[in-house]
Amino acid sequence: MEHNYVISLCCPDRIGVVASVSGFIAEHGGWIVESSQHSDPAGYFFMRTEIRASSLPFGTEEFRDRFSRIAEDFQMVWKICDTAVRRKVVILVSKYDHCLSDLLYRWRNQDFSFDIPCVISNHEDLRSMVEWHGIPYHHVPVTKDNKAAAFAEIERLFNDAGGDVMVLARFMQIIPPDLCERLPGRIINIHHSFLPSFVGAKPYHQAFARGVKLIGATCHYVTADLDAGPIIEQDVIRVDHSHDPSTMVRLGRDVEKNVLSRGLRYHVEERILLQGSRTVILS
Amino acid sequence: MEHNYVISLCCPDRIGVVASVSGFIAEHGGWIVESSQHSDPAGYFFMRTEIRASSLPFGTEEFRDRFSRIAEDFQMVWKICDTAVRRKVVILVSKYDHCLSDLLYRWRNQDFSFDIPCVISNHEDLRSMVEWHGIPYHHVPVTKDNKAAAFAEIERLFNDAGGDVMVLARFMQIIPPDLCERLPGRIINIHHSFLPSFVGAKPYHQAFARGVKLIGATCHYVTADLDAGPIIEQDVIRVDHSHDPSTMVRLGRDVEKNVLSRGLRYHVEERILLQGSRTVILS
Amino acid sequence: MEHNYVISLCCPDRIGVVASVSGFIAEHGGWIVESSQHSDPAGYFFMRTEIRASSLPFGTEEFRDRFSRIAEDFQMVWKICDTAVRRKVVILVSKYDHCLSDLLYRWRNQDFSFDIPCVISNHEDLRSMVEWHGIPYHHVPVTKDNKAAAFAEIERLFNDAGGDVMVLARFMQIIPPDLCERLPGRIINIHHSFLPSFVGAKPYHQAFARGVKLIGATCHYVTADLDAGPIIEQDVIRVDHSHDPSTMVRLGRDVEKNVLSRGLRYHVEERILLQGSRTVILS
Amino acid sequence: MEHNYVISLCCPDRIGVVASVSGFIAEHGGWIVESSQHSDPAGYFFMRTEIRASSLPFGTEEFRDRFSRIAEDFQMVWKICDTAVRRKVVILVSKYDHCLSDLLYRWRNQDFSFDIPCVISNHEDLRSMVEWHGIPYHHVPVTKDNKAAAFAEIERLFNDAGGDVMVLARFMQIIPPDLCERLPGRIINIHHSFLPSFVGAKPYHQAFARGVKLIGATCHYVTADLDAGPIIEQDVIRVDHSHDPSTMVRLGRDVEKNVLSRGLRYHVEERILLQGSRTVILS
Repeated sequence: MEHNYVISLCCPDRIGVVASVSGFIAEHGGWIVESSQHSDPAGYFFMRTEIRASSLPFGTEEFRDRFSRIAEDFQMVWKICDTAVRRKVVILVSKYDHCLSDLLYRWRNQDFSFDIPCVISNHEDLRSMVEWHGIPYHHVPVTKDNKAAAFAEIERLFNDAGGDVMVLARFMQIIPPDLCERLPGRIINIHHSFLPSFVGAKPYHQAFARGVKLIGATCHYVTADLDAGPIIEQDVIRVDHSHDPSTMVRLGRDVEKNVLSRGLRYHVEERILLQGSRTVILS
Repeated sequence: MEHNYVISLCCPDRIGVVASVSGFIAEHGGWIVESSQHSDPAGYFFMRTEIRASSLPFGTEEFRDRFSRIAEDFQMVWKICDTAVRRKVVILVSKYDHCLSDLLYRWRNQDFSFDIPCVISNHEDLRSMVEWHGIPYHHVPVTKDNKAAAFAEIERLFNDAGGDVMVLARFMQIIPPDLCERLPGRIINIHHSFLPSFVGAKPYHQAFARGVKLIGATCHYVTADLDAGPIIEQDVIRVDHSHDPSTMVRLGRDVEKNVLSRGLRYHVEERILLQGSRTVILS
Repeated sequence: MEHNYVISLCCPDRIGVVASVSGFIAEHGGWIVESSQHSDPAGYFFMRTEIRASSLPFGTEEFRDRFSRIAEDFQMVWKICDTAVRRKVVILVSKYDHCLSDLLYRWRNQDFSFDIPCVISNHEDLRSMVEWHGIPYHHVPVTKDNKAAAFAEIERLFNDAGGDVMVLARFMQIIPPDLCERLPGRIINIHHSFLPSFVGAKPYHQAFARGVKLIGATCHYVTADLDAGPIIEQDVIRVDHSHDPSTMVRLGRDVEKNVLSRGLRYHVEERILLQGSRTVILS
Repeated sequence: MEHNYVISLCCPDRIGVVASVSGFIAEHGGWIVESSQHSDPAGYFFMRTEIRASSLPFGTEEFRDRFSRIAEDFQMVWKICDTAVRRKVVILVSKYDHCLSDLLYRWRNQDFSFDIPCVISNHEDLRSMVEWHGIPYHHVPVTKDNKAAAFAEIERLFNDAGGDVMVLARFMQIIPPDLCERLPGRIINIHHSFLPSFVGAKPYHQAFARGVKLIGATCHYVTADLDAGPIIEQDVIRVDHSHDPSTMVRLGRDVEKNVLSRGLRYHVEERILLQGSRTVILS
């Protein structure tokens, strides 16, 4: 089956970056399938290039070696990934199943390419649905008293599963700051508001109280700072005076799952580059 | 020319409100053109009914007299308006012309029905455009030192023009609290963010800094509380990492003018009923 | 549990319709939860009213008897439904599971209220998913040679299940004209294009060939006239030159399932009234 | 003032295109401001690169000379444009002013960069508005009997004005096939439907009759084949049963003007490349 290499990089902007990267690729016969770039006014350059693997005479290891000189010259932060190696997405859920359900559907239908080595939950409710898909389900109860131990267990399960990214699919628990710091840019959350409005608990109730005419959802990287990490994707849906908070919860589910799945797709396809607290999405 | 009467009302919800209102209308041969209602979970009932004027044997005065008994019975806050009497919209602008330009276009094209008795500005820049439309333009400079006098002059011009509603079409000045209080539900502002995010100055710069993926605009009634009045209408537009604040300003103009004109239409068509700090839009 | 009666009606427009209906309701103490109406320029009047069942001293039977005089006077086509009696939705699928999957999710989550007495398919592929939900799955192979017998079997299963509405959730088979005629306004299809563009087979390929910038989906009632029945709901999604037909298929799935579920919700909540080949959606 | 060179090209896809182009640019010190590309599955490659003019030691003439060898090697169809040289947009209108009004607003506000050397109309109605902007207005009556002469005159005026592109801003006249052929990819029309639905006259009436739930507009290049030229941009707006054709006309105006202005911006910024009857928009 055809697979590609994805090179994504960021460096200070300078004449010749594209020429060097594309020159290197062409020199080795690399066939570019897709490429996009961004020159930031602040002086940074971002690039993502997808190359047909079969067109290159070597694999990612040797690519890494050979490309390193260019990378150093331009002070690049960069990586190369093989689309044949699927990202391992560990999903954390609580009792709500809409985001989990949607991710399982997209995984089943290969809507985009990723693996789910396991699902972790602080409740038993969604076990049957997950196991029907042939995916292991780990129950880790989280209480006021066992928070540290529970999250240690979650981290252990994540590592044992070889998790690349942890997705909080409406997990309803705050991730301890030290875990956030050990997995920078590797924990993705879906928040059920259009951030920065309505951080914290019960955002639909906050939205109702303020009388907004659109409600939204935000997919973002988790940092130690609650609901303040870099935003990956957002969307909104129209509401009106006839919608009470419980109707907003129902309508919002569709936005939440769409926003989360789009954000996760950007992540596993290596389309997201970080620039401070902002994201560059090369699609 | 055909015109209609618009009855809009709010009262504690009770059995028989619709029956009484529609019974009264039918009894006098009233032909209902359009009607909508809302029962709030909090126990309030809202209704807007549009009746063909020619179907009734009397005008708004006599309607008011005859209907008053029902209105009292149900403790209604209500009014009746004649669509033949166009709302007088006094527009306040500064130097940006996108919202003004759009409102002038919609007035010219009778996109919806309203009059513009005059435009007031703290700058001379837009005089020619306004006067080309045959509309008076008043220049009232506002400085740090003359704020009170300037707003007194603005209020006088508004009253002399018989203004029904004052529209801040990117006016860039804060309305004094006492003026807000003298014109409750009669001053409409367009704020260039998706409130409650990014209140105050330079919202597009705030949006850029936070890295949001959608920017928006909010049309709201002005109260003494800055950018916190009841929201009438909102909308958003997608942005990405390639959009700097100045591009957001450009893209945002389209959202601002659309949101303002929709909000103003709801107002002049008597579609907006207030419920505390929230709006009920009966469309 | 609280349930409501839904009265939906259509009649020639005349003074007094609302007064009569709401007068009747008020007279018997009926508490109106929600009501909407539409006066068509062509002279027809449409109304849908939802009344709290517990507020009336009688049930739907007696309502029918007592209301019949008013209904006759105004030449109404009307019905009353009890929200406690869930509509029975029989789903027909082929091999694609996105629409089915979405409907099962919404059924599980009570996104809106309906029952699925059974799923019928011309393939075995989706049996396990359906049966996991505890819903019977009937396999009725359809071939060129057995079409009449197969559809007779499908109709029998539909009737045995007490089906109220048949949903073609990407069923990929053309319903025989006589079956369409026996179930007018009771078969709902999702077509994967923005009708009337791209009727018939492979609409995404047609859309790609024409180079459109938006692709869509249409939920409509099935008539003997292929893809030409009354449209219930439509939506679109943006595409560009980089999307080939297979990508459109993937992106289109999300639109299809959303459009179908919204259309089905309107149907089971008795919000759809037919006016010739057009639908009036009272929401 | 800072200006850029825009190189846009199309060629058979081959290893080394990007390397050659970007190598050439880097070799001469060219600073890339923005770049995007597209590899078509059919084997064609499309690229648009914007270079800061001041970073190159030569102008467009010498660029053309020096680049020609690479262009030949790769069999490129290509061009270079200077953003300092504004595209001359000749606007043709009839009596409706919404698209014209919007383009004049965007021109005044430099929403994007273009010139309007003149406006041509078969009616006198919009003269005053155009002349207020200081733009010449030519009245060329078109009747059944003078069609050939009238269009000869229009073509002469277009050529005398040095027109780069002719925009039919709701011109309401069919352009003669021979004129279409003399200006391939240089006549832009806005059609008031979501093509390919509702070609020809009165599309909103057609949309109403079919009962669609969204109406749209299409910006496309004009070819001898009516409403069938390559689509540049499209958008839609939601309608419902309460909207009669005249309301659709009013609502549709907003979509038409937005779609036309976006399409025209792509054109004057050299973002559109043609691939048969489809457009590649490199934005």
